[in-house]
Amino acid sequence: NGILERLNAGEVVIGDGGFVFALEKRGYVKAGPWTPEAAAEYPEAVRQLHREFLRAGANVMQTFTFYASDDKLENRGNKLSFTGAQINEAACDLARQVANEGDALVAGGVCQTPSYLSCKSEADVKAIFKKQLDVFVKKNVDFLIAEYFEHVEEAVWAVEVLKETGKPVAACLCIGPEGDMHGVSPGECAVRLVKAGAQIVGVNCHFDPMTCVKAVKMMKEGVEKAGLKAHYMVQPLAYHTPDCNCQGFIDLPEFPFGLEPRILTRWDMHKYAREAYNVGIRFIGGCCGFEPYHIRAVAEELAAERGIMPAGSEKHGMWGAGLEMHTKPWVRARARRDYWENLKPASGRPLCPSLANPDGWGVTKGHADLMQQKEATSKDQLKQLFDRSKSH
Amino acid sequence: NGILERLNAGEVVIGDGGFVFALEKRGYVKAGPWTPEAAAEYPEAVRQLHREFLRAGANVMQTFTFYASDDKLENRGNKLSFTGAQINEAACDLARQVANEGDALVAGGVCQTPSYLSCKSEADVKAIFKKQLDVFVKKNVDFLIAEYFEHVEEAVWAVEVLKETGKPVAACLCIGPEGDMHGVSPGECAVRLVKAGAQIVGVNCHFDPMTCVKAVKMMKEGVEKAGLKAHYMVQPLAYHTPDCNCQGFIDLPEFPFGLEPRILTRWDMHKYAREAYNVGIRFIGGCCGFEPYHIRAVAEELAAERGIMPAGSEKHGMWGAGLEMHTKPWVRARARRDYWENLKPASGRPLCPSLANPDGWGVTKGHADLMQQKEATSKDQLKQLFDRSKSH
Amino acid sequence: NGILERLNAGEVVIGDGGFVFALEKRGYVKAGPWTPEAAAEYPEAVRQLHREFLRAGANVMQTFTFYASDDKLENRGNKLSFTGAQINEAACDLARQVANEGDALVAGGVCQTPSYLSCKSEADVKAIFKKQLDVFVKKNVDFLIAEYFEHVEEAVWAVEVLKETGKPVAACLCIGPEGDMHGVSPGECAVRLVKAGAQIVGVNCHFDPMTCVKAVKMMKEGVEKAGLKAHYMVQPLAYHTPDCNCQGFIDLPEFPFGLEPRILTRWDMHKYAREAYNVGIRFIGGCCGFEPYHIRAVAEELAAERGIMPAGSEKHGMWGAGLEMHTKPWVRARARRDYWENLKPASGRPLCPSLANPDGWGVTKGHADLMQQKEATSKDQLKQLFDRSKSH
Amino acid sequence: NGILERLNAGEVVIGDGGFVFALEKRGYVKAGPWTPEAAAEYPEAVRQLHREFLRAGANVMQTFTFYASDDKLENRGNKLSFTGAQINEAACDLARQVANEGDALVAGGVCQTPSYLSCKSEADVKAIFKKQLDVFVKKNVDFLIAEYFEHVEEAVWAVEVLKETGKPVAACLCIGPEGDMHGVSPGECAVRLVKAGAQIVGVNCHFDPMTCVKAVKMMKEGVEKAGLKAHYMVQPLAYHTPDCNCQGFIDLPEFPFGLEPRILTRWDMHKYAREAYNVGIRFIGGCCGFEPYHIRAVAEELAAERGIMPAGSEKHGMWGAGLEMHTKPWVRARARRDYWENLKPASGRPLCPSLANPDGWGVTKGHADLMQQKEATSKDQLKQLFDRSKSH
Repeated sequence: NGILERLNAGEVVIGDGGFVFALEKRGYVKAGPWTPEAAAEYPEAVRQLHREFLRAGANVMQTFTFYASDDKLENRGNKLSFTGAQINEAACDLARQVANEGDALVAGGVCQTPSYLSCKSEADVKAIFKKQLDVFVKKNVDFLIAEYFEHVEEAVWAVEVLKETGKPVAACLCIGPEGDMHGVSPGECAVRLVKAGAQIVGVNCHFDPMTCVKAVKMMKEGVEKAGLKAHYMVQPLAYHTPDCNCQGFIDLPEFPFGLEPRILTRWDMHKYAREAYNVGIRFIGGCCGFEPYHIRAVAEELAAERGIMPAGSEKHGMWGAGLEMHTKPWVRARARRDYWENLKPASGRPLCPSLANPDGWGVTKGHADLMQQKEATSKDQLKQLFDRSKSH
Repeated sequence: NGILERLNAGEVVIGDGGFVFALEKRGYVKAGPWTPEAAAEYPEAVRQLHREFLRAGANVMQTFTFYASDDKLENRGNKLSFTGAQINEAACDLARQVANEGDALVAGGVCQTPSYLSCKSEADVKAIFKKQLDVFVKKNVDFLIAEYFEHVEEAVWAVEVLKETGKPVAACLCIGPEGDMHGVSPGECAVRLVKAGAQIVGVNCHFDPMTCVKAVKMMKEGVEKAGLKAHYMVQPLAYHTPDCNCQGFIDLPEFPFGLEPRILTRWDMHKYAREAYNVGIRFIGGCCGFEPYHIRAVAEELAAERGIMPAGSEKHGMWGAGLEMHTKPWVRARARRDYWENLKPASGRPLCPSLANPDGWGVTKGHADLMQQKEATSKDQLKQLFDRSKSH
Repeated sequence: NGILERLNAGEVVIGDGGFVFALEKRGYVKAGPWTPEAAAEYPEAVRQLHREFLRAGANVMQTFTFYASDDKLENRGNKLSFTGAQINEAACDLARQVANEGDALVAGGVCQTPSYLSCKSEADVKAIFKKQLDVFVKKNVDFLIAEYFEHVEEAVWAVEVLKETGKPVAACLCIGPEGDMHGVSPGECAVRLVKAGAQIVGVNCHFDPMTCVKAVKMMKEGVEKAGLKAHYMVQPLAYHTPDCNCQGFIDLPEFPFGLEPRILTRWDMHKYAREAYNVGIRFIGGCCGFEPYHIRAVAEELAAERGIMPAGSEKHGMWGAGLEMHTKPWVRARARRDYWENLKPASGRPLCPSLANPDGWGVTKGHADLMQQKEATSKDQLKQLFDRSKSH
Repeated sequence: NGILERLNAGEVVIGDGGFVFALEKRGYVKAGPWTPEAAAEYPEAVRQLHREFLRAGANVMQTFTFYASDDKLENRGNKLSFTGAQINEAACDLARQVANEGDALVAGGVCQTPSYLSCKSEADVKAIFKKQLDVFVKKNVDFLIAEYFEHVEEAVWAVEVLKETGKPVAACLCIGPEGDMHGVSPGECAVRLVKAGAQIVGVNCHFDPMTCVKAVKMMKEGVEKAGLKAHYMVQPLAYHTPDCNCQGFIDLPEFPFGLEPRILTRWDMHKYAREAYNVGIRFIGGCCGFEPYHIRAVAEELAAERGIMPAGSEKHGMWGAGLEMHTKPWVRARARRDYWENLKPASGRPLCPSLANPDGWGVTKGHADLMQQKEATSKDQLKQLFDRSKSH
């Protein structure tokens, strides 16, 4: 069944996790450029990660084509041994191979472009998307995802291009409850994306799960208020980000090489999956920071709703049940749900703060000032949150 | 060159990271039993992890045979599809295959046994080690490692068995500066292991890098004071554990499913590698929590001493240099050594403490009381540390 | 000069600190009832505290008559040796005696009553205020303050009573930016108080300085938008409360016997005084948690604007200058402004969280639900803040 | 009854709190010089603090003569209006007046001198003590305390001088378990003080209660091991200092103007009083940071042992009992012992660390190196503690 058939039938679809960060830790992606040439260079490493997410319960294999637009690949500093088309094709082949090993669909993905950020024309930006799209059509992916857009305008252009194929289109912004970089609220963003033709809308990256779920909830309310219809998806960070400003984790001082203390536990993922489900989101996955065990936790939390446990749960006792076989009695005593649900994990870092002061506020505040007339409330709210944390 | 030739020549040998924890997160090891049947069940997943550590700079591929003694495999609850011999053989084959793809040696590993903990005789325990050893001999590993022993007595027995092969033997206890579970100090433990025939001695698992380095330093001082000679190794956790008691991270409330906030950054690894090197340790690797990028950081820190950068550094700018290509100027400003060296990363968890109260102290204190006469000082020290943290 | 003459002339008026908490620590007020019978029982202790605030720079001696209404005094459990009138009279005498020792005015104060909370009639509640007022008139205080009201309706009644004397009237609610317990916004609250006759409006208690300043700023904006005129005052807590819900520090688990780690430093007070001044507030003081050195820091920060240093500064070097006489060079190195301005003081409590989960949310949420129609925005904001902190 | 009669009879004697810090906050002592001229300048402020400690349960009124030696008074920068003799006399009169209002003794106190630190001769240093002592004899104090010595040698000299009067002598060092600044262990320090003639020995200032109690316990063990006899006293800080090195809180970056987050709660004081009692200490008081309510908590914890509640408890319900009269039910629910005993109070400062990196280690380490031969163990212990905290 295709993605829309599944969602129309009320199924919960589990997404995969973020490849860029996971493969950076494994040694195949360079932080900074963040480009996915490893799809062509080290296919076995990329294939292995696909397999792990499949095994963790993912129903969608996203092609590893993040930042694989030609303009981005050219910007990356080093010369590559493969062309953009070769990288995009290799990524499609890997996703398809593993998808066919289980119950998964292949989604071809595009994301925001340097062309847009450097103020190229709508036609130029759309041409960039079109080049990746040609590969996706040739390789016959099952559906398309436009994701990681900070500006709803560019996302709308992407959707308009992707729609031409006739395949289902999902669209995700990397925004929080405060809206896009022009101050357009999540609800309004979602309305524009649906009107442009996206059947699935949502949020990915930049914020922690609960914040992303809240933003998607606002999208849903906006769409419903406008009398429109859509499905909803969410693919957040696996990092706690209560201290982010509206540009998300990019502005945290820890980005991207000191985020470890913020990594969510599997138990945090249970709460996320439940909350996303309760809000009415049915395509639930992950982005940067998600490892296979995070996705497995999402799938385990929703096992009853989905009617299936992930294959990978053969190696995982629910709520720590595997610890019942531990030799030390006080460790065996941890094999229970309420223990892990209530644990407040220590950082082992008594010289570190618990929250950070994000960079880049000046710039964002500049944006905010420009947008003051139309979006006063949400920006005030934002500043208030920020000032509040700053003053302590 | 063999391990001893390298160490005798003054080379720095980089170890790999911990397979059990890394593969648990990838979905191939079950927390609780922690057994390595995946070597036979999912060889491509295990092979991929070997390759990542090789690429990160590791010179040693340890066979994935932790807890692969027959008595432990029987204890694990579920029936396995493979025999102990099959698992051990598969693990040897995978390690050898990847070692041959680079400049690495294969080390066959044994660790502490349920038989010892249930007070079986020396002969019984040694018979258990002998069965794994038969596979290592058949598969012709390059050298042997006895590791993860809480009791020096059992480690001595293991060394005595491994020595019979004529291959070089390394021996690691999972202890901190307070010594083994019978209160034997690190210095005395090391002396006993060297006398039993180990050419390399050290510490693995249970404590964070700086604590393990300190314990190995005490071993070195003990060995030198006794007029003996040895090489030294260290393979610590990648978790901060300032709040552990003498049994290490097992007793932390976060073990094993809530350790995320304690994960070391790559910059912590630079400090660790430098400190280990300064202390005179020349076999430097990792254990639970180490991901390939952690080993790569160790190899990058010691690149000048080793005369080589790891292959994986093609995807990693030293000290964050890759960020120079970032679009946002305040992120580009992070592409420098002093930024990352001085960062105090926030946890994003303001409702959580920074240190934990470890479990299991009663039991350990019981041990301590039994040992009071001979080891009063080190135990007092321990209690003092613990009380000090408790009273705040 | 009277209070209005001073404020009309653009002077900065420094208030005193909170007597109830300071005298509880000194042993003269009981936490729970919080009544001020010590004015009659231990006049020398109360007089001494007045003197310390005067010496710290305070221009206003508030009579120690908080919770000295007859209905509250009856509720306090133990029988008192003095009548309500005697307590109120003693408090007036003490304030007047010390005010005459320096450049200070006497302000008679009333606060919220059990009568209002138990739904007594407007006439009954006003009769309660009237009894205290009779003493203030007899003792000829310089002006009147109605403070610590959670419900603007009761505060309006108080102002209406106090106005009858012809003396200047100030009115403070104990609210934050979210408004009063009925969901009336700070701006609207201020408008009602000004229309009732208050010449000075503001906020006291319940929240930390920056939060209170923000609430008063909202009051000012409301008053100006309504085309009205007023002076503004602020007397906040000396505790950090970023984690409070709309009922303030009462709902923190630490209230009232575990608030120590939240106490503001003198350097926090410099920031508060500057921010309050910048916002346009000219009557700047303190409430619970303020000790004399906190008020002195406010007076020192605004010394240039006021043209005077407090008497108490004879015993205080600006920005730590007194440390220049310290014997240890690394302590002498702390005798400078930027050291103290940038210090992030450690708690010495690694087992404690940095934020708390406030109690009582259920009740407040109940209120919020009732108010949903008219105040949706501010309540959403509140819930969002709360959820955000809760989910981490 | 005199101090020795009381202690010999097994009574618990409650000390007072630290005047210097308390009066700095009230505006009468200057941080930096820390001299007590306020005894002559502002007698009513000093008298009031005496009264508060008396009311809190103190059995000893220490003369406010800390740093009142002539050499220190000369060093303080500003010219004083009173001579050293006048200040010492005024302090004696105030202590005596208040002591006579209750069941308290007057103790005349001397402390370490600039003369010793600048390497003056034994004769010169003793002459300095003699001048203060002449006042104490003239004013007929009940006993003498030599306190706040970092070097046991100078403390011994002080005891030798004080002994000449025939009055009972107590001697306190400001050291922790690591010993004095020359590396002399607490046990050995205590032995030297007892041999010099002190009948009571102990520790004051510089460390938190639990650390000070531990140091006094070591003193007691040393004295008993040497076959000597003494009484024991402890007067610690009211600040948490788990992160101090051997010079105590002076070296914390927060000293002296940012210590607020470290202030102990009254519940911490209950634990301290119980622990001190259990260890066998019978003279239990406080030093810097202690406010009257801290001493009251000590007296309340030991009310059964002492057979008396402090007068000040008329205004304090045991274990928060006063909250039973609170209007909000969730605050009333806090009126119980286990609530306050188990509270982990939040700091409200998510941008601050929980531990600090103390200054001045270099200097102390210099000392340590000099002392290495004789005191290796305790110094290693110290360095280990420090390194451990540093590396996280």
